[in-house]
Amino acid sequence: MFKKLFHDYVSNTSKIYVDGNIHPIKVALKQIRLTNKNTINLYDTSGPYGDPNYVASTANGIPKLRTQWHSENEEFHTQMWYARNGIITPEMEYVAIRESNGDGTFTPQMVMESVKAGRAIIPSSKNHPEAEPMIIGAEYKVKINANIGNSALGSDIDEEIEKSLWAVKWGSDTVMDLSTGKNINQTREAILRNSPVPIGTVPMYQALEKVDGVIEDLNWESFRETLVEQCEQGVDYFTIHAGLLKEYVPCALNRVTGIVSRGGSIMAKWMLHHDKESFLYDNFEEICKLCAQYDVALSLGDGLRPGSTADANDEAQFGELKTLGELTKVAWKYDVQVIIEGPGHVPMDKIAENMTLQKELCHEAPFYTLGPLVCDIGAGYDHITAAIGGTMIAFLGTAMLCYVTTKEHLALPDKNDVREGVVTFKIAAHAADVAKGNKQAIAHDRAMSEARYEFRWQDQFNLSLDAERARKMHYAMVGENADHCAMCGPNFCAMRITRSIKK
Amino acid sequence: MFKKLFHDYVSNTSKIYVDGNIHPIKVALKQIRLTNKNTINLYDTSGPYGDPNYVASTANGIPKLRTQWHSENEEFHTQMWYARNGIITPEMEYVAIRESNGDGTFTPQMVMESVKAGRAIIPSSKNHPEAEPMIIGAEYKVKINANIGNSALGSDIDEEIEKSLWAVKWGSDTVMDLSTGKNINQTREAILRNSPVPIGTVPMYQALEKVDGVIEDLNWESFRETLVEQCEQGVDYFTIHAGLLKEYVPCALNRVTGIVSRGGSIMAKWMLHHDKESFLYDNFEEICKLCAQYDVALSLGDGLRPGSTADANDEAQFGELKTLGELTKVAWKYDVQVIIEGPGHVPMDKIAENMTLQKELCHEAPFYTLGPLVCDIGAGYDHITAAIGGTMIAFLGTAMLCYVTTKEHLALPDKNDVREGVVTFKIAAHAADVAKGNKQAIAHDRAMSEARYEFRWQDQFNLSLDAERARKMHYAMVGENADHCAMCGPNFCAMRITRSIKK
Repeated sequence: MFKKLFHDYVSNTSKIYVDGNIHPIKVALKQIRLTNKNTINLYDTSGPYGDPNYVASTANGIPKLRTQWHSENEEFHTQMWYARNGIITPEMEYVAIRESNGDGTFTPQMVMESVKAGRAIIPSSKNHPEAEPMIIGAEYKVKINANIGNSALGSDIDEEIEKSLWAVKWGSDTVMDLSTGKNINQTREAILRNSPVPIGTVPMYQALEKVDGVIEDLNWESFRETLVEQCEQGVDYFTIHAGLLKEYVPCALNRVTGIVSRGGSIMAKWMLHHDKESFLYDNFEEICKLCAQYDVALSLGDGLRPGSTADANDEAQFGELKTLGELTKVAWKYDVQVIIEGPGHVPMDKIAENMTLQKELCHEAPFYTLGPLVCDIGAGYDHITAAIGGTMIAFLGTAMLCYVTTKEHLALPDKNDVREGVVTFKIAAHAADVAKGNKQAIAHDRAMSEARYEFRWQDQFNLSLDAERARKMHYAMVGENADHCAMCGPNFCAMRITRSIKK
Repeated sequence: MFKKLFHDYVSNTSKIYVDGNIHPIKVALKQIRLTNKNTINLYDTSGPYGDPNYVASTANGIPKLRTQWHSENEEFHTQMWYARNGIITPEMEYVAIRESNGDGTFTPQMVMESVKAGRAIIPSSKNHPEAEPMIIGAEYKVKINANIGNSALGSDIDEEIEKSLWAVKWGSDTVMDLSTGKNINQTREAILRNSPVPIGTVPMYQALEKVDGVIEDLNWESFRETLVEQCEQGVDYFTIHAGLLKEYVPCALNRVTGIVSRGGSIMAKWMLHHDKESFLYDNFEEICKLCAQYDVALSLGDGLRPGSTADANDEAQFGELKTLGELTKVAWKYDVQVIIEGPGHVPMDKIAENMTLQKELCHEAPFYTLGPLVCDIGAGYDHITAAIGGTMIAFLGTAMLCYVTTKEHLALPDKNDVREGVVTFKIAAHAADVAKGNKQAIAHDRAMSEARYEFRWQDQFNLSLDAERARKMHYAMVGENADHCAMCGPNFCAMRITRSIKK
């Protein structure tokens, strides 16, 4: 099933493996052989599935790539600890080669420096050796995350595994499993053992299931228990809404759309009921100590992100951001890697302030934003509303974008929505990369445009973010090897006329 | 057929008519009755079709709204002439009320001042009285245009009328008929007589058909003949590529993707073949004299827009822009209204320079851009690539965005692609309006968010840019009047939890 999932329609494309210089690693890249005899290497998230020789088995899981890189006697440390001690890990070398598409643009030393400073993270849990190392930081390719997960209202385990691999097929750099229904543990285990990308979760969802959905019954002990379980399973990063303090709640309640983060609303209700500060905030050092043991990265959650353009950039949102900056320093004390969550609904004129403040308050820890959605009336098209703001904020320095699907605000996404959402956000991330001067992204655009000008249709499809769709749309209208596209017909093709002038 | 086209699925929505104070006009707005007993007025492009009492007949066309506003003895002048002579026309009052949603934000005097200065245009051909007046200028709501038209490869007249009305249904503010195949004249006539929005064309396409597609045979006389025919029919604005001078061609030929404007490539080929300056440039004053007689506005075409991010902001593109600025002054001498065409493929970091230069070189004439597409590898999703850049440039001051469809670079759009393209660009335009502080747009967002927070689903659908799609997606998953959406299920709905806290 999964072989077909990844290889249908793909032609002239293979996986190549670049050897490390420092470590015995083999870095996977996608290579496209163009019809003009050139080749181009591209960043690839498909893991072993992208290799036509690989035979997948959901029951066995994928190979434990990183196990062989570390000796059993080695004391375990986080990537940040290694970086701070001047040690280049296999993971650091891997991402340097990966980000460079094998051409040496990024060096292992550069990667080590950015992890050391906290400007970038390599989410790589001790217990998720299946994942290929990847880096999240503004100096590197902008990454995207796809949320999957069943709710009480739908979907089962097999469907969720397939959805996660489907997201990965279309280029998702990480996947967050936000399941809230039954079988949370089994679903997560199955996803982890089969995922070549880092997996994130919001442990609060499972903690709440443990107390039968009664928010008032939540407590630190059972929350901690959940964290330990998920650390043991191999989750690579946790979203923890520890920055939502009791003092921010009144302001948030007076908003047009209140609190729209699930984790945020749960903690707000708990704090008001018990008239206590958040147990996530009060026990934050304990959380860090635990994460350090497994190198689980912290994604400091924005429980107070605005749910409407009217609520953007308010006191509640920026108050929490300031606290997230303080917590970053705490996590770094324990060598725990940190990213900061942001946006939601933010109009274009208020996007820059988010990025500026985040840089100022969060000590250059990477920013990870949902959208932002630049208006409120796009229901049914909110992947677009969010990609518009996402491109803008990524261009300004956000390191990872959380996708939004077509069904945002309306329903749970199906497979098609996941594909549409992921490709849309790949466009946002890529466009930001081009604007930021990323050499690999610019070369990709250029290869595509040269193929377009020379009517090399096969190459155009293969260089597109969604080769299958591009191919299908084109062939629905014209035959193979046309020297014009179907928009203008042969007599009105501007590129054809231009080429005739040059001749 | 058209009644169904416009009224399927629409509930609690009616057309209201606001009387003018100066002129005997009735300005059509859309009014939504919300389920909380409030009403909200919205800008509406649907013309008579949007009125449930109207019975359409394609053969008879729609009522000639503006005929009754002008007496037969009145000497005809352009809107710019009237504005320069301090006269507020019915068209000016109409757009003031229309832009204000009836609340007086914009006054007829303000409209007159902007038309006088050339900062805005009201495309309103003497011979297209069916069209409802609308204004294009940075001080007003950002507008969008949808291109339709058959190519040699497909579609017939009925299909084109339906496509144009379909674009209007989804909110297109103007429609450009870019037909290049057979029956150009009959198609255009049918579209004009049935269109409540201004219609634009690129007369070069028909001129080329007249010389059997042989570019070398083009000449001023037959081009002029085409202009006269189209002026007589009632086209509201012409795209004329008069700014592409011979001296700019060599630079454009050395680009990665050469010349990608159809009109541009045709003129380049003609100039090189005859070794002469463009006959559009040489006869530009004649063109202006003709347009002044009918108040056909000029959309000064960007024959050298970049077709790849690599070609953005080059000497060819900005050379032409400078010439367009000079031609603007010439047109204004004849009281001809002008907009300036721009972008194409432009990465995010190069968008602002386009807007800045356009303002500097074109004397504040409104900017009308295609996209820009912010990268080259989005084939199959280029409506999104283009909406991202479109939102950015509209926020910076572009007055009208030309939509790009899903099939851009691949094939001719069908009805579904037109809908997807129009709604996507409505999002871009609206998001820019919100960011620019447009009061009406902000109120629309707020009404939507209030409905969302109160789980008023009917209102959310009606306030969405595509009520039909939003409704369908929602109901596919949950029942009517749910107090949660299907994304999170009832126990994890953040807004539901927030509301429970407030209680």
